Amino acid sequence: MFKISLLIIGSEILKGITLDTNSKWITNFITHYGFSVDKIITIDDDPTKIHNAFHDLWLNSNLVLVTGGLGPTKDDLTVDTFASYFKKEIIFNQECQNIVKENFKRCNKVWDKENLYHNIPKDFKAINNPMGLAPSLSYQKGNKYLILLPGVPREVKGIIRETLPSILEKHKTEIHKLVTIQTHGISEEKIFMEKCPKLWDELSNYSKVSCLPTYTGVKIVCTISNLAHEQIIINLFKESNISENIWQYGELSLAEYIVLKASQKKITFSFAESCTGGLAASIITDVAGSSKVFMGSAVTYSNEAKTELLNVKELTIKNHGAVSLEVVNEMSKGSLEKFNTDIAISFSGIAGPGGGTELKPIGTVAISWRTKKNCYEKIYHLRSDRKLLKLRFANIGLMNLLNLIELF
Amino acid sequence: MFKISLLIIGSEILKGITLDTNSKWITNFITHYGFSVDKIITIDDDPTKIHNAFHDLWLNSNLVLVTGGLGPTKDDLTVDTFASYFKKEIIFNQECQNIVKENFKRCNKVWDKENLYHNIPKDFKAINNPMGLAPSLSYQKGNKYLILLPGVPREVKGIIRETLPSILEKHKTEIHKLVTIQTHGISEEKIFMEKCPKLWDELSNYSKVSCLPTYTGVKIVCTISNLAHEQIIINLFKESNISENIWQYGELSLAEYIVLKASQKKITFSFAESCTGGLAASIITDVAGSSKVFMGSAVTYSNEAKTELLNVKELTIKNHGAVSLEVVNEMSKGSLEKFNTDIAISFSGIAGPGGGTELKPIGTVAISWRTKKNCYEKIYHLRSDRKLLKLRFANIGLMNLLNLIELF
Repeated sequence: MFKISLLIIGSEILKGITLDTNSKWITNFITHYGFSVDKIITIDDDPTKIHNAFHDLWLNSNLVLVTGGLGPTKDDLTVDTFASYFKKEIIFNQECQNIVKENFKRCNKVWDKENLYHNIPKDFKAINNPMGLAPSLSYQKGNKYLILLPGVPREVKGIIRETLPSILEKHKTEIHKLVTIQTHGISEEKIFMEKCPKLWDELSNYSKVSCLPTYTGVKIVCTISNLAHEQIIINLFKESNISENIWQYGELSLAEYIVLKASQKKITFSFAESCTGGLAASIITDVAGSSKVFMGSAVTYSNEAKTELLNVKELTIKNHGAVSLEVVNEMSKGSLEKFNTDIAISFSGIAGPGGGTELKPIGTVAISWRTKKNCYEKIYHLRSDRKLLKLRFANIGLMNLLNLIELF
Repeated sequence: MFKISLLIIGSEILKGITLDTNSKWITNFITHYGFSVDKIITIDDDPTKIHNAFHDLWLNSNLVLVTGGLGPTKDDLTVDTFASYFKKEIIFNQECQNIVKENFKRCNKVWDKENLYHNIPKDFKAINNPMGLAPSLSYQKGNKYLILLPGVPREVKGIIRETLPSILEKHKTEIHKLVTIQTHGISEEKIFMEKCPKLWDELSNYSKVSCLPTYTGVKIVCTISNLAHEQIIINLFKESNISENIWQYGELSLAEYIVLKASQKKITFSFAESCTGGLAASIITDVAGSSKVFMGSAVTYSNEAKTELLNVKELTIKNHGAVSLEVVNEMSKGSLEKFNTDIAISFSGIAGPGGGTELKPIGTVAISWRTKKNCYEKIYHLRSDRKLLKLRFANIGLMNLLNLIELF
């Protein structure tokens, strides 16, 4: 088996200043090529620590990908450390200088020969960095590969896309595919202990199963090595007691799936957001092609804006409060009319940390879904912190939007 | 020195299905208590791999925090693995059962004695999990601590907040503080190679320096162990050639800083968003207290919505295109009027992957900032993928919003 591991270098990550998003992107890329990542070590910009952590990974892997520490500042020690690990001199590399010059030109920066990116360890190769300045480096020793990457996510993506496929294709031996089943409105306890106590073992006959709670519901991921097992697994779920909780056999996000389904049925939708503060719209507009089905959202954070943009009556707010079924019903009506859509959803709630009352505590949200013919509304009570409440409020609205689209 | 490390268990993380956000939150919490995290290992739900990775960390740390694998499904192997590592029997624990019963009650779930969360390794202690069902576990051996946490972020936060401070306070010996300086509109190369070639070494006399490019600019973080050095470092920056590029001496996010400054000056603002699709509003509304200064955003994804909600003239769109200074100027006017605010910002651009033209390629954005007296507008050209472009567009708008607020 071709073993792959990651070394993530960066004091800013170990201090909790920066969220490491490279690992997820890289491991996801590798998983889709049918390989798996064995281990990730995250470590400080410290030569001894880098040396020791890398040693551990290099001994046990065929490919080690390293991110971070390729920049121009003095805490960027990666090149020196690897030169010393492999006992290589750092020397001028013409190919590397060509890449650097080209990159400076592309970014409209003035190249300066004092710039030292072109000095790299002997026997290392320079790899183009189509989104940045500093070239990436690679080294091969027998059947083992090392790739040194920068830390900036868009640069990492550009380099990985150009470099990794050829190495992975060369070492591909076995099939490895993910079959994803996404449920909603049921906990993992309820699925595997109560509703389908035999399901885990049955799935395990055909796959390695993992189960993860997400903000759109429980996701079950079965890794198969025989393509014929995919349909068997799907049938196990279709015939199970949780078939009605499954909203997708596949790994699209909720927003991607909504945009796909709405596009297929030519249904348009819009929002009116108070407590979610634009997040529902932002989740949808992250999806390429969403402009065909999503017309917009009136983010009306103040009461005056609810009246001015959505024609919510002042009296309704006065009598029932901004967080009420009455107000969200007028908001969804306003959104449907102003954006001229088939479906409108509105949200009004309390994300905290202030603003909660005994009757409407933090975590309360009123949501209304409206079509030209019908209107549905409901109040939910959740527990979480502000950012997560926004996300969970938005996801409840979106999950019911999907249901409405499927019924249309 | 009291050494702390993290072991992150989860196949879903190594497959790139789930983004690990726990590490950032935990390391940030620890950093603010004046400690640092030495190493993070991320590993599969596999007993042998967990055993080996933990062994490495346990030998070299005073405190190991483990996340993941405490759930109810068969891939949750953490408890068994640690019982076997420490050669402990798994036995019934009354305290643990009490916690579990209490948690089931709080979540309105029916507790069932078949539930096995109450069986834990001998000599381990149960810790309450105020946001979930499965209790967290801790173990102390001499001067070494182990804490086993679930994988769900909101549960991790609840447990850490209750458990970690008492351990950290006990072992606090040296001062350790972060001094953060945030710049804008200048690259790290330009800061440390061109404008202030001596700055890095000067800062290093008083602190350990790290430098990281973020989407709001380059952030320089100096870790000091003598509080008197804070002012010296700030003065070095104030007297440097980049003083005008510094927008904050502190570690608030751009949105937090905007909400703070606008609140102090009692300035209100609103947006009109096309290409950012609600993201600018969502970034602002992530901040607690933003409702005092942020009135809302008209997310007008379609041209009709721009006309209907913001009074943008059809003819302006027809003559100049939706991505034009003329259109964003009418959008910001509409936003200022409809939301009745002191400042309005509008965005219209092309986030891709479709929709680019030769004159207006993907990454083009027109932004307008308007007060009751003035209007500023500009077109930018950036390179990135869809999600990042949305973020970078939003950040440009917000950085200039901050400038306007400070001039007000």
